[in-house]
Amino acid sequence: MKSIGFIGLGAMGAPMAWNIHKAGHVLSVYNRSPQRASPFAEAGLTVHDSPAALAAGADAVVIMVSDPGALHAVLHGSEGLLAGLRPGALVINMSTVSPDAAAAAHEAVAAAGGRFVDAPVSGTVKPAQDGTLVVLAGGTRADVEAATPVLECMGKTVIYCGEAAAGTRMKLVLNLMLGGMMAMLGEGLALGQAMGLDAADIMTALGSGPMNAPLYQLKAPMMLEQRFAKQFPVDLMFKDLNLVLEAAGQAHVPLTATAGVRELFATARALGYGDADMAAVVQATRLAPAAG
Amino acid sequence: MKSIGFIGLGAMGAPMAWNIHKAGHVLSVYNRSPQRASPFAEAGLTVHDSPAALAAGADAVVIMVSDPGALHAVLHGSEGLLAGLRPGALVINMSTVSPDAAAAAHEAVAAAGGRFVDAPVSGTVKPAQDGTLVVLAGGTRADVEAATPVLECMGKTVIYCGEAAAGTRMKLVLNLMLGGMMAMLGEGLALGQAMGLDAADIMTALGSGPMNAPLYQLKAPMMLEQRFAKQFPVDLMFKDLNLVLEAAGQAHVPLTATAGVRELFATARALGYGDADMAAVVQATRLAPAAG
Amino acid sequence: MKSIGFIGLGAMGAPMAWNIHKAGHVLSVYNRSPQRASPFAEAGLTVHDSPAALAAGADAVVIMVSDPGALHAVLHGSEGLLAGLRPGALVINMSTVSPDAAAAAHEAVAAAGGRFVDAPVSGTVKPAQDGTLVVLAGGTRADVEAATPVLECMGKTVIYCGEAAAGTRMKLVLNLMLGGMMAMLGEGLALGQAMGLDAADIMTALGSGPMNAPLYQLKAPMMLEQRFAKQFPVDLMFKDLNLVLEAAGQAHVPLTATAGVRELFATARALGYGDADMAAVVQATRLAPAAG
Amino acid sequence: MKSIGFIGLGAMGAPMAWNIHKAGHVLSVYNRSPQRASPFAEAGLTVHDSPAALAAGADAVVIMVSDPGALHAVLHGSEGLLAGLRPGALVINMSTVSPDAAAAAHEAVAAAGGRFVDAPVSGTVKPAQDGTLVVLAGGTRADVEAATPVLECMGKTVIYCGEAAAGTRMKLVLNLMLGGMMAMLGEGLALGQAMGLDAADIMTALGSGPMNAPLYQLKAPMMLEQRFAKQFPVDLMFKDLNLVLEAAGQAHVPLTATAGVRELFATARALGYGDADMAAVVQATRLAPAAG
Repeated sequence: MKSIGFIGLGAMGAPMAWNIHKAGHVLSVYNRSPQRASPFAEAGLTVHDSPAALAAGADAVVIMVSDPGALHAVLHGSEGLLAGLRPGALVINMSTVSPDAAAAAHEAVAAAGGRFVDAPVSGTVKPAQDGTLVVLAGGTRADVEAATPVLECMGKTVIYCGEAAAGTRMKLVLNLMLGGMMAMLGEGLALGQAMGLDAADIMTALGSGPMNAPLYQLKAPMMLEQRFAKQFPVDLMFKDLNLVLEAAGQAHVPLTATAGVRELFATARALGYGDADMAAVVQATRLAPAAG
Repeated sequence: MKSIGFIGLGAMGAPMAWNIHKAGHVLSVYNRSPQRASPFAEAGLTVHDSPAALAAGADAVVIMVSDPGALHAVLHGSEGLLAGLRPGALVINMSTVSPDAAAAAHEAVAAAGGRFVDAPVSGTVKPAQDGTLVVLAGGTRADVEAATPVLECMGKTVIYCGEAAAGTRMKLVLNLMLGGMMAMLGEGLALGQAMGLDAADIMTALGSGPMNAPLYQLKAPMMLEQRFAKQFPVDLMFKDLNLVLEAAGQAHVPLTATAGVRELFATARALGYGDADMAAVVQATRLAPAAG
Repeated sequence: MKSIGFIGLGAMGAPMAWNIHKAGHVLSVYNRSPQRASPFAEAGLTVHDSPAALAAGADAVVIMVSDPGALHAVLHGSEGLLAGLRPGALVINMSTVSPDAAAAAHEAVAAAGGRFVDAPVSGTVKPAQDGTLVVLAGGTRADVEAATPVLECMGKTVIYCGEAAAGTRMKLVLNLMLGGMMAMLGEGLALGQAMGLDAADIMTALGSGPMNAPLYQLKAPMMLEQRFAKQFPVDLMFKDLNLVLEAAGQAHVPLTATAGVRELFATARALGYGDADMAAVVQATRLAPAAG
Repeated sequence: MKSIGFIGLGAMGAPMAWNIHKAGHVLSVYNRSPQRASPFAEAGLTVHDSPAALAAGADAVVIMVSDPGALHAVLHGSEGLLAGLRPGALVINMSTVSPDAAAAAHEAVAAAGGRFVDAPVSGTVKPAQDGTLVVLAGGTRADVEAATPVLECMGKTVIYCGEAAAGTRMKLVLNLMLGGMMAMLGEGLALGQAMGLDAADIMTALGSGPMNAPLYQLKAPMMLEQRFAKQFPVDLMFKDLNLVLEAAGQAHVPLTATAGVRELFATARALGYGDADMAAVVQATRLAPAAG
């Protein structure tokens, strides 16, 4: 890969881009609000003023934006990525969107003469910084292989999930389980404490059996100490659970338990925890009696 | 402990009793239907014909029966355990019941001059055979310590959870999480497969991140291959989830997500999987269109 | 019916008993806490000091107590109703209990030589005062017919539902629908208002179509004005929904929607509205952001 | 209104258009697939071959299409309605879409120099034929008043709900309640029958109290006799419940009960009842044990 472009320098995107740079690739960047690109300019990288300009000089473009609308805006329009795309260039979408949006991006890129890989990631800011994300890749095997040297700068593990949009589908499955496990941990801790059990004892008991997962050891202390510094916010999990339920509707799969999980996160949002870490879902089970 | 009695020689109780015997304790047994006691008689152990008779010769009595009704029947009545209880003898209830039933048993035993420990277990038949159950013990510290040499014959880990009935409360918390994780795994696999993902890829992705738990590696193959040989049946999990929701009602804790989990198990029961392993909960998300 | 006894002079029971008295029947009464019986004594009625004493002089005994435990206590023990029951006397249980508890009461009464009718009511304090309750009666046709002159003092409509315990089962079906409709009304109003609609417009629209029900016209103003003076409290509906889900578990019927309804009421309880009218379930959808 | 155009001649749209015609208005029509327009051509009405052509000759255009995508397609593009819109013409969208889609249509129409009213309807095919729909209208008061003579051809009742998109929001509230009441009726009947109650008795009891609604008298016989001839199909209700939950997410309102309702409809779809009347939601509670 001679030249790589990166679009979307947010909390996840910026460290991912740095890791590509550190791996020795020639990197140029674009971000909608230019101030987030300044550190890259200061480090001597080229900062473009449109996706089209960035694409014009890139063999591969990585996109890491916040939602389907942002992805659409990056691709389309006279300044959009597709307007500048080189023939045969690789477009790697790492944003989490719906399978429909991933498929639409695939179609648009193919129609513009490019190759498309969807590669959303499992993991939050810390693994993004450490280059230890899990990458869930969809596309033809050849295209995913072509993308792999770039992907491996960001993620220790690249899992091939199938045709284009399959990475996005896998991401939804993982986030169904992530949200569900957070809900169960929250309800379990809340019930246990309300029944008078000691939180440390609960964690010992949970840690002694087959239900133990690293996630619980990471998130239970946050729930117990009500420390909700954002790693993966409630609003984002709520957005992903909506994508999960939308995909399940299309696939004719009822999700009776996940529907309850969604409402627990909806309750946390209503309580004002939308921007807090998803550990704050526990608050939805700790309701204080209304005054008066 | 000079002499130990064991009541309830079912799928769990029998191997637990053998492990006490193997550890060198003097053991006598009782079971409502006598044929399940025959192997013990053949091995030379005393088989009593009532709980009262068993209690009359025991310093400690372990109870492992199926539900609160059976526990009540073992304790009360002219042939019941309390009718024969020695002063200061230790009654260790390992059956999973409601916290209320555990508290009532505690009261009744105390009133009859005995000491009470509740000690339900986490784990199924295999750990019961191997003596590697996790024991969740409630009672005074002195009583739990007195019970520990017996408990350690059955479980590698004895966790002190607090006053009498606290072990039962802890068991409910763990089973909330166990049922919830089974539901999430089932819904996740069903959605993933319905979207065209490969099950092996799902398990690789799940195994690469912080959500990984030994439970998933154990149960996912059963779900995927539709092997539902009973380790922990759907009906039993459904019973436990009802106890969880009952306890949550008393503690004024809403359990929005767990309520959905309960209905997923209810659906599996309606589909005829009550006696199958709880892995069969996945079938509740794989509904075939009605004929015609 | 020459002589009638009435046990349970609470918010519902007292006006029901007065209506029997006003209809010209010879009535004597019993209540666990004697002060609630004083108005009856002042009016010249006999007040007994035990259910057994009351039963000894009665051709028919009506029971209206709060839960299965209270029903059990009324029937059993040396001072209990069964200890004094006349041969062939009619026992009419109007308390809402589980179908199992109704069936157990039926068995106990039959074993004591009496006849049993279960006759829970639909309606709250106002219809109890007006004698316009709907009575849901179970028992043999002959026994329900024998009870009907007494029942008609209290309810304008007596519906024969089948064998003993069938009235109790019908009550559960009605309360499933009552709780569900309250939940839907609460969620609909809360969503509409949060989206900026005018509450009066919502009620006009709802009143113009086939979903209109007298319940909504009665309860929506309470929800909108946050007037929660108790007619049918949240705690009681929550208790009944638990009975519904328990019965559904036994009947192998999943209740995916009702499970969500239960949690909405659980949330209202957690918010401190247990003793408020069930209209307060709307508060469970109006969560204020936590301070700070 | 001198000249009216109607776009979307489906099961609802066609009878609505006929009622405008019968009321004496000058009407021309357009439908994507031309064969549905033939009866109108045969009756001597002008059939246009694009929304633009229809708009060019219309003072008011009524749109009744199936979803947000179809609405977008009708409005935009070189053949789209906006391309032909007369200055000051009234665009009346009666399709049920999301509030966002209604607001977007409003913006686009205003930008093109037109006036916009959203006016989704409550009621199905029969009231559409009889001109007795309930119309839920949003827009400025002046625009809704201007639209009212047209709307009253189709609906006996026109309810002013507020600014543009308010009609759409009201429709969501009504469909939340409609779906919820269908779910409750289905679960209530299923539970009652599973407990051995007679369906006619259930309907008598339900009809005797404040929960009675015309909807139940209409839909219960369909559920009991398993007649599911489509009036309002399961798929459409499922689509609307998704819009409800999406709107609730934006409004920060948790919908714990409605989430369960959605999954009951999801289960009915998975069982193959997507195209059946919404009364078929009852089947989601009547699960047959799997063979073997």
